[in-house]
Amino acid sequence: MTRSKITGTGAHIPARNIANDHFLGNIFFNNDHTAIEQPVEKIIQKFKAITGIEQRRYAPAGIVASDMGTLAAEEAIRNAGIDRESIDLIIVAHNYGDMKSPGDPRDMVPSLASRIKHNLGIKNPECIPYDIIFGCPGWLQALMQAHAAIRSGEAETCLVIGAETLSRVLDASDRDSMIFSDGAGACIIQASITGESGIINTAVRSDTSEELGYIYSAGTNKGDESDTRFIKMNGRKVYEYALKYVPQAMKACFDRSGRNISDLKMIFLHQANDKMDEAIVQRFFELYGITDLPVNVMPMNIAMMGNSSVATIPTLLHQVLNEEIGTFQLSEGDLIMFASVGAGMNINALTYQW
Amino acid sequence: MTRSKITGTGAHIPARNIANDHFLGNIFFNNDHTAIEQPVEKIIQKFKAITGIEQRRYAPAGIVASDMGTLAAEEAIRNAGIDRESIDLIIVAHNYGDMKSPGDPRDMVPSLASRIKHNLGIKNPECIPYDIIFGCPGWLQALMQAHAAIRSGEAETCLVIGAETLSRVLDASDRDSMIFSDGAGACIIQASITGESGIINTAVRSDTSEELGYIYSAGTNKGDESDTRFIKMNGRKVYEYALKYVPQAMKACFDRSGRNISDLKMIFLHQANDKMDEAIVQRFFELYGITDLPVNVMPMNIAMMGNSSVATIPTLLHQVLNEEIGTFQLSEGDLIMFASVGAGMNINALTYQW
Repeated sequence: MTRSKITGTGAHIPARNIANDHFLGNIFFNNDHTAIEQPVEKIIQKFKAITGIEQRRYAPAGIVASDMGTLAAEEAIRNAGIDRESIDLIIVAHNYGDMKSPGDPRDMVPSLASRIKHNLGIKNPECIPYDIIFGCPGWLQALMQAHAAIRSGEAETCLVIGAETLSRVLDASDRDSMIFSDGAGACIIQASITGESGIINTAVRSDTSEELGYIYSAGTNKGDESDTRFIKMNGRKVYEYALKYVPQAMKACFDRSGRNISDLKMIFLHQANDKMDEAIVQRFFELYGITDLPVNVMPMNIAMMGNSSVATIPTLLHQVLNEEIGTFQLSEGDLIMFASVGAGMNINALTYQW
Repeated sequence: MTRSKITGTGAHIPARNIANDHFLGNIFFNNDHTAIEQPVEKIIQKFKAITGIEQRRYAPAGIVASDMGTLAAEEAIRNAGIDRESIDLIIVAHNYGDMKSPGDPRDMVPSLASRIKHNLGIKNPECIPYDIIFGCPGWLQALMQAHAAIRSGEAETCLVIGAETLSRVLDASDRDSMIFSDGAGACIIQASITGESGIINTAVRSDTSEELGYIYSAGTNKGDESDTRFIKMNGRKVYEYALKYVPQAMKACFDRSGRNISDLKMIFLHQANDKMDEAIVQRFFELYGITDLPVNVMPMNIAMMGNSSVATIPTLLHQVLNEEIGTFQLSEGDLIMFASVGAGMNINALTYQW
């Protein structure tokens, strides 16, 4: 049986390290334009307690998502040890295109995938580049699309990238702006006919009734006349939605894998919010009657990296493979899961044997 | 064998009809910011002679791409006679997201596909919506992705939409701005196990060396300080590229279909430019040693509709099915082709038995 196997990973972590102190001069407002009465120190303290975020990364001015995606891709190609001209498919997940600076038009003509193919110097006209827009779960969805292309025989080698510069769509008067960061992650995924390593199965869910408005675009919280729009979310609704449906979707996916829950070694969750991610994994195990969370089951990088949307999972995977996340280590044969949730709302999950 | 069969089509043609006279007050400049010395009447005359465009459609203020896509989708669902809750996949091709007015942020959070699923009132959480960015050939590429999902058994019923408001990204000082228009087209494509009707085969090509810069985003031709960016193209390069590679890609696709060229009834080409489209089809037949173009082989709507990017092919198909394009008629069993070219540069082609 042909499997889809990740044979190389890469990440670009932007140079500018932004600590929480960075926001001490901000004046925060609620979504309804009313001022938040607490002192800013208190707001930041509370923010850190809920999200676990101490620092985040911002791309330097002029560096766009496709630039970061190119760097992550170069590393993934190098680590996979492949000839770049053998790549059949380049899929890039993002949500805001290339933006040189805040307020800049969100540019995706030509597509970011075409730009990255160009930057990588790939000449093969049969290497097909396209972008997918699917909220934060876009990278995982792109991985599933690569898997489908491999299964159907259309592609043997795919480059799957997530790249985002959320620092360019932040409203400084919104507390939630402290969550977001920039980054890019990538992997090479290839058809494999030897061994058991590869994608086992997948699950996807979409809810677009009132959920459509949980993560959206709007003007500033402080309220002004500008036409600029920013990333916005209804944090409470996102939290409730994620806690209700992500563990369910993960279980649906895992159950269909035919594996035993006691064999699950690690869960790579979209880095959205420390407390939320913990609650999701807790509830997932509870669905199997397991109330004591297994140790070292969930690597996290959100404290130092923030939420870089489509880039969080591939970056985290790359860091674990490089043994940069505590004592987390992946070995051949390890059973792992990926899961994500984001704008749409969309949820996806994937089981994988390393 | 399971085939992928188009079972319903729809289109939304925006209400605002813009004749060439609309541009009589414009002052046109070259890309290098030098003024074009000819009188505007002459420029428009020449424009019409080359492109064949007499009119184009602009969406009224406030109507965005996903609104138009919803209307086209409603019609496709109605024509297919399906239960909307049976749709497994919604793929929306666009390049500029939702823009309410010129200069407005290009909004795709949440994705246009999620917005359209919401507008259609579809509740099924297993109906998965995503957007694809692939230049003008995006709708045809989305159709191919739906076909792949049907072949792999992942989906049985897909909704494939192309929607674009190019009137929101036009530089009034650029002659090429007269080409572009707004619109949306859609189809329902379904797994079919009876009969011969459906997609036969496909071909795709991508060139991203110097070709990356043929269709791009930039400031005005007249030159000003604004950060706003517009759709731009190097018309001569696009023409040369299209003429060189589109007939080749079409032939590669058609040859692999195993059919006879004399059986080809109709070609649905991306409506980019009247003269260019004629030259492409001419050269395509020449590759088969046919120098006399078959009559009624290429339906065109560009004279009255302009170039609405991803929307041109599904709109044209819908119009032919409604017998709105001269004497063109499609009957069961007819062998047809779709082909497109656009930013990237990307080319795709597809053979289909009606």
